[in-house]
Amino acid sequence: MSFRISADAIGTDNARRLAFLEDDYAALKRQMARRGIDLDAIADQVAAFGVALPSWGVGTGGTRFARFAGSGEPRGLDDKLEDCATIHQLTRATPTVSLHFPWDKPSDATALKAQAASLGLGFDAVNSNTFQDQPGQPVSYKFGSLSHPDKAVRDLAVAHNIDCIRLGETLGAPALTVWVGDGANFPGQQNFTAAFDRYLDSMAQIYAALPQDWSVFIEHKLFEPAFYATVIADWGSSYLAATELGPKAKCLVDLGHHAPNTNIEMIVARLVRFGKLAGFHFNDSKYGDDDLDSGSINPFQLFLIFNELVDAAQRGTPGFAPAYMLDQSHNVTDPIESLMNSAMEVQRRYAQALLIDRAALTEAQTACDALGAHNILKQAFNTDVSPLLAEVRHRAGGAIDPLALYRASGYRAAKAQERPPRGGSSAGIV
Amino acid sequence: MSFRISADAIGTDNARRLAFLEDDYAALKRQMARRGIDLDAIADQVAAFGVALPSWGVGTGGTRFARFAGSGEPRGLDDKLEDCATIHQLTRATPTVSLHFPWDKPSDATALKAQAASLGLGFDAVNSNTFQDQPGQPVSYKFGSLSHPDKAVRDLAVAHNIDCIRLGETLGAPALTVWVGDGANFPGQQNFTAAFDRYLDSMAQIYAALPQDWSVFIEHKLFEPAFYATVIADWGSSYLAATELGPKAKCLVDLGHHAPNTNIEMIVARLVRFGKLAGFHFNDSKYGDDDLDSGSINPFQLFLIFNELVDAAQRGTPGFAPAYMLDQSHNVTDPIESLMNSAMEVQRRYAQALLIDRAALTEAQTACDALGAHNILKQAFNTDVSPLLAEVRHRAGGAIDPLALYRASGYRAAKAQERPPRGGSSAGIV
Amino acid sequence: MSFRISADAIGTDNARRLAFLEDDYAALKRQMARRGIDLDAIADQVAAFGVALPSWGVGTGGTRFARFAGSGEPRGLDDKLEDCATIHQLTRATPTVSLHFPWDKPSDATALKAQAASLGLGFDAVNSNTFQDQPGQPVSYKFGSLSHPDKAVRDLAVAHNIDCIRLGETLGAPALTVWVGDGANFPGQQNFTAAFDRYLDSMAQIYAALPQDWSVFIEHKLFEPAFYATVIADWGSSYLAATELGPKAKCLVDLGHHAPNTNIEMIVARLVRFGKLAGFHFNDSKYGDDDLDSGSINPFQLFLIFNELVDAAQRGTPGFAPAYMLDQSHNVTDPIESLMNSAMEVQRRYAQALLIDRAALTEAQTACDALGAHNILKQAFNTDVSPLLAEVRHRAGGAIDPLALYRASGYRAAKAQERPPRGGSSAGIV
Amino acid sequence: MSFRISADAIGTDNARRLAFLEDDYAALKRQMARRGIDLDAIADQVAAFGVALPSWGVGTGGTRFARFAGSGEPRGLDDKLEDCATIHQLTRATPTVSLHFPWDKPSDATALKAQAASLGLGFDAVNSNTFQDQPGQPVSYKFGSLSHPDKAVRDLAVAHNIDCIRLGETLGAPALTVWVGDGANFPGQQNFTAAFDRYLDSMAQIYAALPQDWSVFIEHKLFEPAFYATVIADWGSSYLAATELGPKAKCLVDLGHHAPNTNIEMIVARLVRFGKLAGFHFNDSKYGDDDLDSGSINPFQLFLIFNELVDAAQRGTPGFAPAYMLDQSHNVTDPIESLMNSAMEVQRRYAQALLIDRAALTEAQTACDALGAHNILKQAFNTDVSPLLAEVRHRAGGAIDPLALYRASGYRAAKAQERPPRGGSSAGIV
Repeated sequence: MSFRISADAIGTDNARRLAFLEDDYAALKRQMARRGIDLDAIADQVAAFGVALPSWGVGTGGTRFARFAGSGEPRGLDDKLEDCATIHQLTRATPTVSLHFPWDKPSDATALKAQAASLGLGFDAVNSNTFQDQPGQPVSYKFGSLSHPDKAVRDLAVAHNIDCIRLGETLGAPALTVWVGDGANFPGQQNFTAAFDRYLDSMAQIYAALPQDWSVFIEHKLFEPAFYATVIADWGSSYLAATELGPKAKCLVDLGHHAPNTNIEMIVARLVRFGKLAGFHFNDSKYGDDDLDSGSINPFQLFLIFNELVDAAQRGTPGFAPAYMLDQSHNVTDPIESLMNSAMEVQRRYAQALLIDRAALTEAQTACDALGAHNILKQAFNTDVSPLLAEVRHRAGGAIDPLALYRASGYRAAKAQERPPRGGSSAGIV
Repeated sequence: MSFRISADAIGTDNARRLAFLEDDYAALKRQMARRGIDLDAIADQVAAFGVALPSWGVGTGGTRFARFAGSGEPRGLDDKLEDCATIHQLTRATPTVSLHFPWDKPSDATALKAQAASLGLGFDAVNSNTFQDQPGQPVSYKFGSLSHPDKAVRDLAVAHNIDCIRLGETLGAPALTVWVGDGANFPGQQNFTAAFDRYLDSMAQIYAALPQDWSVFIEHKLFEPAFYATVIADWGSSYLAATELGPKAKCLVDLGHHAPNTNIEMIVARLVRFGKLAGFHFNDSKYGDDDLDSGSINPFQLFLIFNELVDAAQRGTPGFAPAYMLDQSHNVTDPIESLMNSAMEVQRRYAQALLIDRAALTEAQTACDALGAHNILKQAFNTDVSPLLAEVRHRAGGAIDPLALYRASGYRAAKAQERPPRGGSSAGIV
Repeated sequence: MSFRISADAIGTDNARRLAFLEDDYAALKRQMARRGIDLDAIADQVAAFGVALPSWGVGTGGTRFARFAGSGEPRGLDDKLEDCATIHQLTRATPTVSLHFPWDKPSDATALKAQAASLGLGFDAVNSNTFQDQPGQPVSYKFGSLSHPDKAVRDLAVAHNIDCIRLGETLGAPALTVWVGDGANFPGQQNFTAAFDRYLDSMAQIYAALPQDWSVFIEHKLFEPAFYATVIADWGSSYLAATELGPKAKCLVDLGHHAPNTNIEMIVARLVRFGKLAGFHFNDSKYGDDDLDSGSINPFQLFLIFNELVDAAQRGTPGFAPAYMLDQSHNVTDPIESLMNSAMEVQRRYAQALLIDRAALTEAQTACDALGAHNILKQAFNTDVSPLLAEVRHRAGGAIDPLALYRASGYRAAKAQERPPRGGSSAGIV
Repeated sequence: MSFRISADAIGTDNARRLAFLEDDYAALKRQMARRGIDLDAIADQVAAFGVALPSWGVGTGGTRFARFAGSGEPRGLDDKLEDCATIHQLTRATPTVSLHFPWDKPSDATALKAQAASLGLGFDAVNSNTFQDQPGQPVSYKFGSLSHPDKAVRDLAVAHNIDCIRLGETLGAPALTVWVGDGANFPGQQNFTAAFDRYLDSMAQIYAALPQDWSVFIEHKLFEPAFYATVIADWGSSYLAATELGPKAKCLVDLGHHAPNTNIEMIVARLVRFGKLAGFHFNDSKYGDDDLDSGSINPFQLFLIFNELVDAAQRGTPGFAPAYMLDQSHNVTDPIESLMNSAMEVQRRYAQALLIDRAALTEAQTACDALGAHNILKQAFNTDVSPLLAEVRHRAGGAIDPLALYRASGYRAAKAQERPPRGGSSAGIV
């Protein structure tokens, strides 16, 4: 018997916190009313917001130097779904899971879909993997996959992506996310143009295999695992590829995949404007693709991204429906805690972006009132929406304080009993 | 009477150096022959290469903190052309001048064209300026120009650009370069999408005024003078704008206008591949848009850019004809010396790129021989082509050692006599 | 007669806002009480906090490309003090002014001190300037000042710094801040070691001239105006210099003077630990030394710096008394508005840092509970302390909403009448 | 029987290349003579230069995403020494090996020393490892080692370092290199000051265990594996720690461990000036700690570092004797090829730095002739010293063209036969 947190446990914990929440929510509601904002209407919008969980994110992550296992780590897909369900149970903010193949390839996709549904979960975009060799693989991705000089390697990578689509179809997923590590460690190693053309040719084959209502998300990344050049290194290359492929191809923005100092919110605006924003891999970073918890390093940046998204939604951009996914590496925390925290952080910045007075903002922008416009954003960002988020969770049957409840629940300790330690070495690669 | 360096002076100086040059050139030629390279054929290609001088570059530059005037600085357009002619006389590498309006707006463009021709100079792309207000200007560019919320400001900026085109036509220039500082210093100050759309609208009017055989070069820049967001901040935005406008619009690459760690040579490859490479503003930088002398900080990067260009040329890319211009700020050197040095540095890296064994490179790339491919580049880069460059200059009537000859010539001292000190304050702006 | 905002005007405006403030403050107080925090005690600490205004900051700033004048800009030191007094009148957070010589060199320092006192202002550290030449200067700072190869230049720079100390003494200032732009634009231009030794030698002379109770603040900066190398480029060099000089020499941290991705709060911790933290030049930046308004780009970073400062204060670090100064360039806003906004932003992040539960934080840190520790910081950061700040201002006789009151007051329009346009050209330097 | 490249094979290959080398060397010697340089004297200096090989570098490296094994990879310490010996045999530039414990912990250190000596190899600094857990380790380094909050963990890490010293003593190594990954992934996770103090306390115990004539090298790194903060993140922290510890403690510079845009050569100058330069881990990088082959990305930077070192040596800096080690990750090349290439690249930039005319350089620097000074450096950098390096190798019994000879020798194919494939998975960590 697998341990689950009971609805009763949530109810009991919430009951202890309710009076204070009501006081705080009421105070915030009065304050918002003075600004002309109906907090309950905002609550409805926040309640409708969800972010997908990455199947790989519920296991402990690592660096090339080491991985330090956690206790009670999921042993397989069943355990991962269970952990995802727990996150959604408490936060009510993560209704879908994004699977990564072949790491989480189900033996029976139809059964998996039913199992997920029984846990209240659906599936978001599926992810392919051609940056690692699998045992028995006939040719190697050491020097690339979709852009490899050798057609046999490209064919293998294309076939794998098409397999992912087929699996995803069965699971009810809407899209395929393609990230490749293809690139070069040395100037001269790769002909940039030839490699890009081979990538386009491979992607065209994958594109042709997309179901009618599917999308393919192209994920760019500045560097790592290739350290001199990467085939899809920036949003410009991503946009070119997506445009060459066709309307089903769009550009995915991972917050950690940019050069230092990049204005990511502007990239979001550009992709929205040209109909090519696929969605996000949320995380935070200080140096590179650090895969830290969302909003843990630069929460204002996350807010500014949601400012663009809310602006796009409110002005009625046609076809605007970005996909939201977490993509983090949890090296020093309980992954369930990090994912709950991150989902609520993303929700927090979205909620704050909803508080922006857009009419006043437009007026200030038109009048070149730089400081006035800025302060409109800042007022929203400085507003503590914690009571709003807790209220939304409470209304939906979630926990007022998911972290506290989770820690008190004994979930991790129970899983440490149920799940024998994962064999994963901590030796690193270096 | 204005001082000029005489052909005799060049001849005399060259004569002293010729024997050593011949020895060095012969040794290099033997070495290249062993690699299967005909050095004389390379010399012909190098001789055909030219880079445009920026009219603003012959004056001393400065920073927001101060400008420290040099001696004998040009007082106006006549002096600037004279300095440019001297640079070309000695280096034979700078046959054209790129003018900046209104800084160097001629009262009589036809006369100016003739004057330049008499000095052996032509004109490359002309540059507009809507990042500064001119005395008596009816509305201000303080909050932008082509993307300003106020149509009156945009109209002024559009009209100025069209004026530049008309002047350029008379001068025989082939293109207009448009760089704007439009952007924001505060999150919220500007609606990114609205600003971009206004920019596109303004540019469309400028585009419509282009002569049949002209191009418009869009120059992106990450930051400065706007420090939070810039309308055309990266090559992605530049590409979008150029594509929206049409085939005459292309993307100019200034080497200092990118985020830290950016792989510029890959941007070059992408723009070439999609037919949108306008050309270059050459300079070097370590931190931001430092506008240092070309190749003074990262000469290997400059070589890698030329590797892309030579590759594109040799594989016969249709319509491939990038414009080459220097764009530097000479704060602590004699600008003439810096421009001669930089022109020769650009030439040096081009010459080295011509030495790359492309068949062997392609073979190594196809075989995934990363180190072998890299060493082919490195061998070319490590080759000292100084004798080749000197030989090319000598054959064309230039100086074997332009710097030494210039310093010995007394040119600057003579100009300090001819040209009273420029009134430009050194007070800075801060 | 010079226009001033009357106490009555403040009282009237505050009266309209008081009821809402009381509601919000009471709600926050209840919430804090639940966390075990006495909000009134926090208010007392916030009330005791002040940040110095830069005399140069009340004028409109610019870039090397242009300066766009504002209306009613201060014509001289009198006007500047008047603007500073207005900022302090409304915010009650800026009791001192930091002067910059020779820009704001008084003809009669004793009189100036009295004048400032009558406005309720004192003086913080004075700043020297050897990065610009002054009219009639016998030798130039073009190639450096305190580290120049020529002793005559170094002597001039040393003498100027000693002049600044003497002026500062009369004014009651406690310290001299030394920032030099000395460095190099070219590899090879400067011998790094020789230049550093000359710098140390010059600084030792300045150090010797310090009054008994004075400090000298060494301000490092990564780049600009020197673009390849800077003599005091990082905190390591700053620390070495301060250590060589003696206990009166300390290291000033300007938030915009670091390499990309630098963890500034850790530098603060290191300098505190080794007794060498002088204080701060507050501003914000996204790319380089952008000199944007404090907290406008990365407010969480500002909070994390104050987390270090509050930690140092609360654990009783001996001699811990950093100097707080704003140092911003206001290119697109009314400088008075920007300085008020920035002072309140600095205050906001300080107030939030005071809310951190340090006992719980230490416990989580000791238990390696990374997420728990982080959430303790985040809870403080997410708390909206706006009512607290307004309450503190109100209690001290300032404005509940300084920005709104200032805009409604007509101050700037009155000054535009009183002060004829400043002659400063907008031509830029480039 | 283990395959070795025979001296005959080297002699035969060299014989085919000798005539061309003689022609090229003679031409270079004539050219240098004209510059007043005795090429043979330079050759003697280059011949005396050596760089240590990292024991871990002869195996194929990887990233957190994957490791793709090479063929014939060393199975253990014997194989590693054999590969190192081959590199030195051909290049004559790598006389020592730097061991990493516990990866390469010998069962019998005395025997290992004799074995190495028989291969013509000695040992340079030994490296400890407290960034990974070893099987059966009683406590974990997951949250740090020398700075861990728990004394038991610190004690374990200290004891391991002292073990390394004891092993190194037996091997005849001169120093211990300490790099720790200790840090934090979250703001708040770690008290910066407490962690640094614990680090200092642990290091003091290690320092106390150093033999009389030993040094301890402190290696700083900006980030990875910790992604928010690292205990020894920059040279400032490294210098503070080394100064606290005492004269045997010095600062090691790894070229990839700095913030973007950092001027590394200036850090070298500062550490030399204050007697704290330990030496180098050579590699190259474009983005982070990419561990690419030395000089493959920015060869001019490597030259500028050697410019500082040669300057320090020639001016007679007391106690100046930096340690030179390669530290690279060879993910896509044959590690032997990369290490040969890198050793020769380091040698190349050292040789070029020896060609700098220091008297002329000093004269130009003193005269503020920025361009003249720069051109003196550039002339040296542009000189193709390939014939010099080949001549030095040839004189020492090495290969004129090590890469070509190695590839022709069949060494790797023979090892692939001798050494069964290493079991190392390519699965990555992520």
